[in-house]
Amino acid sequence: MKVAVTVMLKDGVLDPQGRAIGQALTTLGFGGIGEVRAGKLIELELAETDPERARARATEMARRLLANPVIESFSVHIPTEA
Amino acid sequence: MKVAVTVMLKDGVLDPQGRAIGQALTTLGFGGIGEVRAGKLIELELAETDPERARARATEMARRLLANPVIESFSVHIPTEA
Repeated sequence: MKVAVTVMLKDGVLDPQGRAIGQALTTLGFGGIGEVRAGKLIELELAETDPERARARATEMARRLLANPVIESFSVHIPTEA
Repeated sequence: MKVAVTVMLKDGVLDPQGRAIGQALTTLGFGGIGEVRAGKLIELELAETDPERARARATEMARRLLANPVIESFSVHIPTEA
């Protein structure tokens, strides 16, 4: 089944990519833009068929490889359309 | 209000980053991993307070800057926790 892992920089960690996106949008004429934060979305197709076990495995993968726990936080969810 | 834009490579477009993540997970001992796809998640804080207008603006931003329509598809959603 499909599992999605979202990895974002923690609040308080400077996000230069997000800031660059915000400035580019302002330059393009978009107004009223506050904070912009850029993160990663990783979709994994797992052989696991039980949602709880798939979620647990994806959490373990995020801890060990996908996220850097020093500066990033992550969340795991099962896409509803899958 | 906060709006999230998800940008993924279209189906059929080779995703080397996703493939590298899949191989790294397998090397770490995780089994049963099928396709892995890596995308971007961009969270924007907009001055707009109407959800429909915020969504429309974020869609316009995605079309003009955040996604490359040749190889990427995007979706816009309003995070429920915001």
